[in-house]
Amino acid sequence: MSSQTQPDITQTFICPMPLDQSKQILMGHGSGGQMSHDLIQRSFLKAFDNVELAAGNDAGVVELPAKCRLAVSTDSHVVWPLFFPGGDIGRLAVCGTVNDVAMMGAKPLYLTVGFILEEGLEMDLLDKIVDSMRKAALEADVRIVAGDTKVVQKGKADGIFINTTGVGAIPQDVNINGQNARPGDLVILSGHIGDHGIAVLSARGDLDLALAVESDVAPLNKLVEAMLKAGGQIHTLRDPTRGGVASTLIEIAHQSKVGIVIDETKIPVRPAVNAACELLGFDPLYIANEGKLLAIVAPEKAPRVLAAMRDNKYGTESTIIGRVTSEDQEQVLLKTGIGSLRVVNSLVGEMLPRIC
Amino acid sequence: MSSQTQPDITQTFICPMPLDQSKQILMGHGSGGQMSHDLIQRSFLKAFDNVELAAGNDAGVVELPAKCRLAVSTDSHVVWPLFFPGGDIGRLAVCGTVNDVAMMGAKPLYLTVGFILEEGLEMDLLDKIVDSMRKAALEADVRIVAGDTKVVQKGKADGIFINTTGVGAIPQDVNINGQNARPGDLVILSGHIGDHGIAVLSARGDLDLALAVESDVAPLNKLVEAMLKAGGQIHTLRDPTRGGVASTLIEIAHQSKVGIVIDETKIPVRPAVNAACELLGFDPLYIANEGKLLAIVAPEKAPRVLAAMRDNKYGTESTIIGRVTSEDQEQVLLKTGIGSLRVVNSLVGEMLPRIC
Repeated sequence: MSSQTQPDITQTFICPMPLDQSKQILMGHGSGGQMSHDLIQRSFLKAFDNVELAAGNDAGVVELPAKCRLAVSTDSHVVWPLFFPGGDIGRLAVCGTVNDVAMMGAKPLYLTVGFILEEGLEMDLLDKIVDSMRKAALEADVRIVAGDTKVVQKGKADGIFINTTGVGAIPQDVNINGQNARPGDLVILSGHIGDHGIAVLSARGDLDLALAVESDVAPLNKLVEAMLKAGGQIHTLRDPTRGGVASTLIEIAHQSKVGIVIDETKIPVRPAVNAACELLGFDPLYIANEGKLLAIVAPEKAPRVLAAMRDNKYGTESTIIGRVTSEDQEQVLLKTGIGSLRVVNSLVGEMLPRIC
Repeated sequence: MSSQTQPDITQTFICPMPLDQSKQILMGHGSGGQMSHDLIQRSFLKAFDNVELAAGNDAGVVELPAKCRLAVSTDSHVVWPLFFPGGDIGRLAVCGTVNDVAMMGAKPLYLTVGFILEEGLEMDLLDKIVDSMRKAALEADVRIVAGDTKVVQKGKADGIFINTTGVGAIPQDVNINGQNARPGDLVILSGHIGDHGIAVLSARGDLDLALAVESDVAPLNKLVEAMLKAGGQIHTLRDPTRGGVASTLIEIAHQSKVGIVIDETKIPVRPAVNAACELLGFDPLYIANEGKLLAIVAPEKAPRVLAAMRDNKYGTESTIIGRVTSEDQEQVLLKTGIGSLRVVNSLVGEMLPRIC
């Protein structure tokens, strides 16, 4: 061990441009030293105020209501731009993971948050994003119990990436799974599709349109709770994010080894979303949503579940869009507006990069 | 909804350079479509083979052994370079989170993994990293039950970033916390310090030395298990990663409102680590470790705990390096080789960026 006097270690941080520690993220904010500590205090602990985080340990310690199955889900968020009509990366990061946990019928309880920050990120932007996460967590009634912050050099990331991981408790009698769709089941969609994808696209300025489309990004756990309360027999739940309604239904058709027929005329799409899609040659069926769910429900229970969804603020536009069949296994068929039936194909590559 | 025939959406993916889908990561691998599906099948499901992942749902569903408290921890890994003597980002990502969970005295059970990949990343590299994660998870006896993959454009990340989040069960009688250090307790260190930081630094080629230092990156949960079995009264556990032994002990001194005195001559540092530190003006006390822990233990139990540590392959070099005092509260003091006592200062900014 060196016996020389302690070197001035702040001198070893060499920054190629002048950055202001009070206004911008520096490499030192990811050091694990005093600057990290200060950032956590001023930004994160203030926003995500709870005993688990404040304890300052390596892991948050939490209690579960009872012995139960857990649903665990993780999502990294790289959406660009960071702010878009109707939302931002912070709200998206909370809702995205809350929704994945809720899609197993679980009650989301705890979230962790991992930030990867690019050196030079404006502190004001970070504050806005963190505040948006705080509000979304409050709306979803989940607690952020552990966090991590890393900083990479300018040019080695794109502003901010956020990972959220969620833990939820699955009620004892709930068994919701992508494999549980049964012939005869009805397919319920909770509202208009394509809003999120088109809102993000319009925020990029690539569209030469003044589109009045807002992202639908929202936590769906309260909607799922209401659906379960309405009488169960929900076989499958899934939120049609990347790849849209088409990819999600194809996945379910594969997992459950069933066919699914949906009716184009029943699927709600806003005129502005339709217009953008026609212009760009996209199909709204493949556009990402962040506040919608698809439910596959036993037909005798569907009316009660649908009524409960329409009564809930996250599902007022819910509607039945199709049904599960024993024919055309592992395929999704679309009954078009003119009455023909066509196969809905899998998305191969990337349609809209960095949409979430 | 568009009634035109489905557009060829693969055409909308425009890549500025020729990339080979079988050998490199493309934007389409993060699309949620067929390419994502194929990547998950070929790379992740093969390596992390378990029923939770294979179910292909939005969240992994897991059981807990009994009603228990959970320790939940998250870490994003941005280490550079991706491979270094003794480890790589994959092993680091698994061990880092396993260790954070274990530092609460919990048994780590489940991990989630979130990848952020840069377009153009070589598939071979990804495969090596994933295989390293597989081996580390096996070594630590934890299961990877949920995952996520995002791809960003070339130049918007730095190869690969990996978030891991861990969930562990805390045994009923265990109460290990940064606030529990008591005057009179002894401070045990599980081995040589500074190996990880210096190994990563040497892999960067910045050091004009042929240093034979390997990272200590390792899962410490089995070591913690052995320590608990040896008779408890472990008050605090922490792994001295970013900021090293100095920052970790300062944190504990603050959390527990105690003083800590450590003896320089008792702290094991390899000659090569010492040499590198002297050359660079670093102090090994601040250098990151990824396979070491600090334990604060009641003095009457310390000999048994120490013996158990030395019997375990992750703690053969364990030694008592200091004690907790009621004086000099919230300070760490170092008794130097020449007998003087000096205050160990907090690290302010960044010493070694992207070390984990």
